[in-house]
Amino acid sequence: MHDTFGFLVALISILFFAKIFGEIALKFGQSAIIGELLAGVVIGPSVLGLINVNINETSVLTSILTSLAELGAIILLFEVGLSTNIKEFLKAGGWAATVAVVGVVAPYFLGYFVFLCFGFTSTQAIFAGAILTATSVGITARVFKDLNRLETKEAKIVLGAAVIDDVIGLVILAVVLKLVQGGKVTPGMVASISGTAILFLALSVAAGVLIAPSLFNLVSKMKQSHAVFVMGIVFCFIISALSTKIGFDPIIGAFIAGLVLSTIKQKEEIKRDVKPIYAFFVPIFFVLMGTKVDISTFNPFVVANREILVLMAILFIVAFVGKAISGFVVFKKDVNKLLIGISMVPRGEVGLIFATAGLENNAFREKEYSALVMVIILTTFIAPIMLKYLMTEQKNS
Amino acid sequence: MHDTFGFLVALISILFFAKIFGEIALKFGQSAIIGELLAGVVIGPSVLGLINVNINETSVLTSILTSLAELGAIILLFEVGLSTNIKEFLKAGGWAATVAVVGVVAPYFLGYFVFLCFGFTSTQAIFAGAILTATSVGITARVFKDLNRLETKEAKIVLGAAVIDDVIGLVILAVVLKLVQGGKVTPGMVASISGTAILFLALSVAAGVLIAPSLFNLVSKMKQSHAVFVMGIVFCFIISALSTKIGFDPIIGAFIAGLVLSTIKQKEEIKRDVKPIYAFFVPIFFVLMGTKVDISTFNPFVVANREILVLMAILFIVAFVGKAISGFVVFKKDVNKLLIGISMVPRGEVGLIFATAGLENNAFREKEYSALVMVIILTTFIAPIMLKYLMTEQKNS
Repeated sequence: MHDTFGFLVALISILFFAKIFGEIALKFGQSAIIGELLAGVVIGPSVLGLINVNINETSVLTSILTSLAELGAIILLFEVGLSTNIKEFLKAGGWAATVAVVGVVAPYFLGYFVFLCFGFTSTQAIFAGAILTATSVGITARVFKDLNRLETKEAKIVLGAAVIDDVIGLVILAVVLKLVQGGKVTPGMVASISGTAILFLALSVAAGVLIAPSLFNLVSKMKQSHAVFVMGIVFCFIISALSTKIGFDPIIGAFIAGLVLSTIKQKEEIKRDVKPIYAFFVPIFFVLMGTKVDISTFNPFVVANREILVLMAILFIVAFVGKAISGFVVFKKDVNKLLIGISMVPRGEVGLIFATAGLENNAFREKEYSALVMVIILTTFIAPIMLKYLMTEQKNS
Repeated sequence: MHDTFGFLVALISILFFAKIFGEIALKFGQSAIIGELLAGVVIGPSVLGLINVNINETSVLTSILTSLAELGAIILLFEVGLSTNIKEFLKAGGWAATVAVVGVVAPYFLGYFVFLCFGFTSTQAIFAGAILTATSVGITARVFKDLNRLETKEAKIVLGAAVIDDVIGLVILAVVLKLVQGGKVTPGMVASISGTAILFLALSVAAGVLIAPSLFNLVSKMKQSHAVFVMGIVFCFIISALSTKIGFDPIIGAFIAGLVLSTIKQKEEIKRDVKPIYAFFVPIFFVLMGTKVDISTFNPFVVANREILVLMAILFIVAFVGKAISGFVVFKKDVNKLLIGISMVPRGEVGLIFATAGLENNAFREKEYSALVMVIILTTFIAPIMLKYLMTEQKNS
């Protein structure tokens, strides 16, 4: 029978601690998102144990919370897309592409090299490198949003780069999965995966911009309250669902849907109604990500932890530097290069998806998987703190 | 692996068809809720088959959608509670209790009698009678709300009666379950179940009214946007979770939470932010209820259906009349007695919970279960149509 009590208790813990820790983070001058991630650590299995969402576990509650977190990530990127000016976003395209390519190539080879040095096979090293290529646009977008910086040049380059990054990431993941499954990787296959991805992006933006205005003029004639908002969400879910069909993460589709709807007349109405939905769903995403941190792995007094801690530390440096340098290829005078580089650092959910695929396909054992997950989480923790610092400094100068 | 595509497609179907059929219902002068229930029938297994949420099925998608529908029911009742004036609600208490008692006793004995006439055992007849005692405050509240009638005397009596009805229903269910499980039913047990239920109601209202104002004055000092709203939802979930612990349906707790928060200063802020959440979650609840209708059972050309169709028809009349007469015990001049009676007719989710408990405990076979579910759904369909008619007539006279 369905456990309503357990479900409600989980939601209560997530939302209550998210708000309390978010408030504490604000008091210390941090972004609320750090508080929400910490709330996850505290209510997660390694401290209070109120929430236990293990990737390998298949309990019903886990599935439900994962789905709600997924909606949180989708709504986050939808809102970010809605707040983006599509023309300026496309203008940033050239630099965004450059940042994305460097931000993929550098961490890939660094990660590959580190894994080889630690004695892993070349297939494992390729997979590890692939995992480090991901960028979590969710985290960065949230920090920019929390600090009211979505309209800056840096934000546009970073958001563009993150989307392009995910397209490249998708291609890499497909190729790498083929490799570990023992298949043959042909140039034709790589071309076909890349082609599909780019075609989807271009077609959905073009079709959306052509169809959405007249569609929503029709919807705005509906008499039911909040019909425009609900149909906006439906539109977002449709593009998100389509993007999963071609192998993208659904949040890419959500961002595109937001971009498209940012061009219609009813944009403000949708933005207004999305806010409470955002306040409900988005913290679930960040808190759940925090619960995946097992702080006992960080204990250096346990001898068995030490080798993996060293691997973790080196991987973290590599993951950080590999992305941070990507900002410095933007040869423009009036942008903060370091800010762009750091913005690309968080791996977040995309990295976790990659790592989980690696575990499921037996590319790694639990131990290396843990190290990779920790690195992903560390990048996710440190970037918002540094970004907040950089942006406040920029404002004061 | 988690099926994001299937999950999104389910949400798209539910929300899209809910809005389209809701709009059609409005065009025909009906309440939007009829449209949402019909949307469920259309996308359910018996027509398009887009959604298949079977009570006996245990797929992950079913659990997720059921949880979202549950949140829909909780948010619906929370909103209704928020819109209720607690003083006037308590004033209606006397008549509400009378209506509730008659609305439990009459359908119970009628249902019991019908089942005995059809040759069922006395235990089965007792269970069938118990199922007919439930009242779905959700459906009625939504109709009153859609027609802006939550402030009327009738609405207050009906909402009060529905809550009391659920308290009585809880006691009956506990006793009947004891009976089918072969246990002994003692007066002491009945008294203890009743006592717990009444104590919970009184305590949670009293504690809430005492604590909530100062609690939310603290919350309103938080800097995060929508903190008051999220904490309002947390408060609602806490009372809902507590109410499941003592055997209530969570929606009773949600209604109480809404009632309590209707007394605080920050009420309007919470009400404003609940609206988009309501527009997202509540249709999921009604559409999912609609998907449980299998229209093929209504086919009279299938001989096997006929006996059960006759039982269904008689049970439906009994279920309808048993509740409808409850309104006529309100000996007040200025209230619409028929309106009150009809408002008590829909059985909705509470009836379904009862029936499912009966099936799980082998009190019935699938066939009688289907008949009972059909009766519950018919009462749920017909009441909004009649209420809408009665209220429009009242307004015009």
